Formats: sequence, C-alpha cells, structure tokens
Amino acid sequence: MAPHEHRITVRYGETDQMGFAHHANYMLYLEEARTALMAASGMPYGELEARGIGLPVRKANLRYRAPARFEDVLAVSVWVERVGPASITFGYLIDRPADGVHIASATMELASIKLESGVLCALPDDLRASLERTQAAV
Amino acid sequence: MAPHEHRITVRYGETDQMGFAHHANYMLYLEEARTALMAASGMPYGELEARGIGLPVRKANLRYRAPARFEDVLAVSVWVERVGPASITFGYLIDRPADGVHIASATMELASIKLESGVLCALPDDLRASLERTQAAV
Amino acid sequence: MAPHEHRITVRYGETDQMGFAHHANYMLYLEEARTALMAASGMPYGELEARGIGLPVRKANLRYRAPARFEDVLAVSVWVERVGPASITFGYLIDRPADGVHIASATMELASIKLESGVLCALPDDLRASLERTQAAV
Amino acid sequence: MAPHEHRITVRYGETDQMGFAHHANYMLYLEEARTALMAASGMPYGELEARGIGLPVRKANLRYRAPARFEDVLAVSVWVERVGPASITFGYLIDRPADGVHIASATMELASIKLESGVLCALPDDLRASLERTQAAV
Repeated sequence: MAPHEHRITVRYGETDQMGFAHHANYMLYLEEARTALMAASGMPYGELEARGIGLPVRKANLRYRAPARFEDVLAVSVWVERVGPASITFGYLIDRPADGVHIASATMELASIKLESGVLCALPDDLRASLERTQAAV
Repeated sequence: MAPHEHRITVRYGETDQMGFAHHANYMLYLEEARTALMAASGMPYGELEARGIGLPVRKANLRYRAPARFEDVLAVSVWVERVGPASITFGYLIDRPADGVHIASATMELASIKLESGVLCALPDDLRASLERTQAAV
Repeated sequence: MAPHEHRITVRYGETDQMGFAHHANYMLYLEEARTALMAASGMPYGELEARGIGLPVRKANLRYRAPARFEDVLAVSVWVERVGPASITFGYLIDRPADGVHIASATMELASIKLESGVLCALPDDLRASLERTQAAV
Repeated sequence: MAPHEHRITVRYGETDQMGFAHHANYMLYLEEARTALMAASGMPYGELEARGIGLPVRKANLRYRAPARFEDVLAVSVWVERVGPASITFGYLIDRPADGVHIASATMELASIKLESGVLCALPDDLRASLERTQAAV
C-alpha cells in the first residue's frame, strides 16, 4: 500500500497576519490525514477509543519548508514508519500539487494508553496487524 | 457583584491574514471569561462536570464592532443575564483598555445536560444559587 | 441556484472533553462553506482581498441543536440572505446526512471594508451582481 | 537573565475528547511564551513586523510527557538556545506548578525573512543584541 494521500484546503481562520497557514494548524492537517489512513487500513481511530484505547501524541517533529496560504489545496501523504510494542510512528509529507512545491515534512510518535487509567498498554493485535500490513507495503 | 472582568491577550496564532483576531477566537475569549466568573462565584465549571453535568452552548449572538489585533490586551466583562430552569444566559462586553475602544458584545445561552445521556436536566440548586447571587448583584 | 452544500468532517482536535465538536469551530465550518459558495458564484474571496477589499464578520447568530462528534460528516448549506450597500448576510444550516439530524443553524453578516484603511466601502458591483444572482435563485 | 517564565491556563476549547489539552495547542502556548520573552528582552515581535521582518517557524520538536487538562495552570519556561545568522532557536519546558509534574519540552527554530518578499534575511543587529543578552545569561 502506497502512503495514504489526503487533501486539505487551508481555511481563512487558519491563516495568520503573515498571510501564512499558521504552523500550529499543520498538526490538525497531519491528524486528519492520519485519521484517514487508519480508517482506510480497517481500524478507524474512533473504534479504538470505543474499545478503551487512546493514541495520544508523544513526540512531534515538524520541518516547515515553504509557506502555505489561504485556499491552497495541500496533499498530505502519511505512512506508518515504525510499530513499537506500545507506540506507532507516522511519517508525513505535505506538498502543494498546484505548483509542486514541497511545504513540510514531519514524524509523529503516538503512545498506546488505556483511556480509563492513562497507563501505557500494548497495541491491540488487530491494530498492530492492520498497521503492519500498511507499513510492509510502503 | 459587578460583572466579572477578565483580561486576555491576543495570540499571534489567533490573528488572520487581515491582521485581525479571527472572529472564531472570540468564542474562546468569552469562554475563558465565563469560566473565570464561575470559579469566582464558587462553582468552578470543572466541578460541575465532575458531578456529571455539562453546560454546552445552545445559542450564541456576537456583535463585532472594531477589530482586535496581535498583542492587544482585551478586557472581557461577563455577567449572568438570566437563569432558566435548565439554562443560563451570559452577557459579555469586550473592550480594549489601552484606547478605550469597544471591540465586541455578545450573549450566550448554555443548556444544562446530563453528560452521560446528553439529556436536558434542571440546573443543580447550588449552581443556581451561586449564579443568582451573581446575577442579583449586577 | 440552490443553497450551496459543503461537506466537512469533524477533526479530533476540534472535539472538546464533552466529546462534542467545540462550538467555536462551527465558525470555521461556516466560513469554509461560505468561501466555497463565493468561489462557486465566480468571485473567490481571495480575489476580493487581492483587490483591496475584505469582508470581516460583523454579526454572528448561531443556534446549536444537537452535538456533532469526531469523524461526523456534516453538510453545511449556505445561501445569500441579503445584500446591503456595504454588507452581505449569509444563512446556514448544518445537518448530519448519516442520520438526518439537524445540528445547527446560523446567520452571519459581513461588512465590506477597504483593507488598507479598515473603512467601510460599497460592495464592488461585480461581487454584488454575482451574489444577487445566487440570492435570486434561492 | 533566567529563562522567561510565562503562565497559561488551559481553555475548555483547547481540550479534546480524551480530556487532554490537544497537542496542537501547545504550539500556541509556546508562541505566547516566546512573544512574552521577546517583549521582555526589549524587542516586541510586533515591532519587528512593523519594520518588515517576520520570524516564521522552520523547525519544531515537541516531546509530550504528561497530559495537561482543563483549567490546569501551566508554567512555560522559554530561553534562547542559539542565534544563527538568519535564525533563532528557542528552548522550552512546560511544567504544572500545582503538582510539579513535567508536562512537555520543545525546541523551535525560527527563520528571519523579509515579509514583503519572503526571502531569508540577516537578523537585525538590535534583535541579535537583545537576544544574545538574553542567551548569554542563561
């Protein structure tokens, strides 16, 4: 499976007075793409939470290369970089298809926790399997 | 008790490309002021949720009169306008003390619900009492 | 022309601890739909700003009827309700097609200003024409 | 000069359905603290933009260690880690004074650009001097 590609359009309220999509909003773009990847892999994130397991972000590394602007359509590619015992690392690339400009790249590590207690827990086997299928194919 | 006054400072990420504090963020400013009023009245909102009751917003009316900008310090005044059987209406004024400009006004009606079921419920007596004390004094 | 319908999906970062799409984010949903309507009517908002004219929000009235949740796909219908000499009023309905639940309704009045000075100005004739075409058909 | 310490309080709208302050909002907390540091060092960021120079974020590394929750008061410490020819790197620590829990750490590299063209430019001498004074003392 190739990296999952997800399209987002920059909202007006996401711009800042520099005229750029504000850097904090990229985390929402990455999250939306990651959510779409998980749904496509057969394990929607909402289902995971319904089973009492959450995936809060533990580490985030972002590299901003060119500004995105209002109404820009961005292609967010996301893939599974590593599946640990109680964590998943996703890789991301953001491009602007209209002119081929590379906008940003990122990695994000999510921990697997029990929602009730907040304690780390092993990734469920079926999530691991669906993610590794995704990963293997990259 | 006079209307509760709360100060907020406009964040860079809250501006938009027009150079104004984006209108959606005013709802966060109003919410922060309302939260401070409730804490000051002796009934912090967090405590209410711990008892299984939530106050989602049901109606919001905002009137934007002059733009606020990055690093503006805004004074948000908030008061209880009406306490219904299962709702509270707050009134708000936003000013910029530095130059006395009136920035915005608003009213917001919150419903009282049971968090577990989402069903409307009567306001708890102690919340009603603490709000009416606040209201009476306005 | 029927009201313009625009689909959005609730992001995780847009939920709050009540498990609802936080009420402030609805303004971003309405804005995204309005932006799409303007683009469809032949006058993209970005072009207007490139000509030195902005449309800041002056009044907003929102009525929240049922909560939206993470990953809900919402249909935001938007139409032109009134075109004034230096203002436009948009009407909105938000529904959740999956179960037909009516989520929210709103109106929003935008003022027409010169971006350089912030002073009110008449709506440009071509914008007025494109909006009235849209309005007439509702 | 010791690292600048800035206090923020988690807003309701900044929580997510996990009950945590959503990870994207940390960037706004860091930005608010950085803005306060710059103002304290004698070079408010707004003044820099008024002179035609912007400091967009180029790299961000965040490490989330414990969740923050609604109404938590967080202490954000920020300092200058490195001043380059056309960039500044800030370091950050976020703690929760109420219970001494370490919430997050981060570094962020900002590039110096001309706002009009978006082209990289040398940091102005007076900004460099005020930042190095801050840095030297850490």
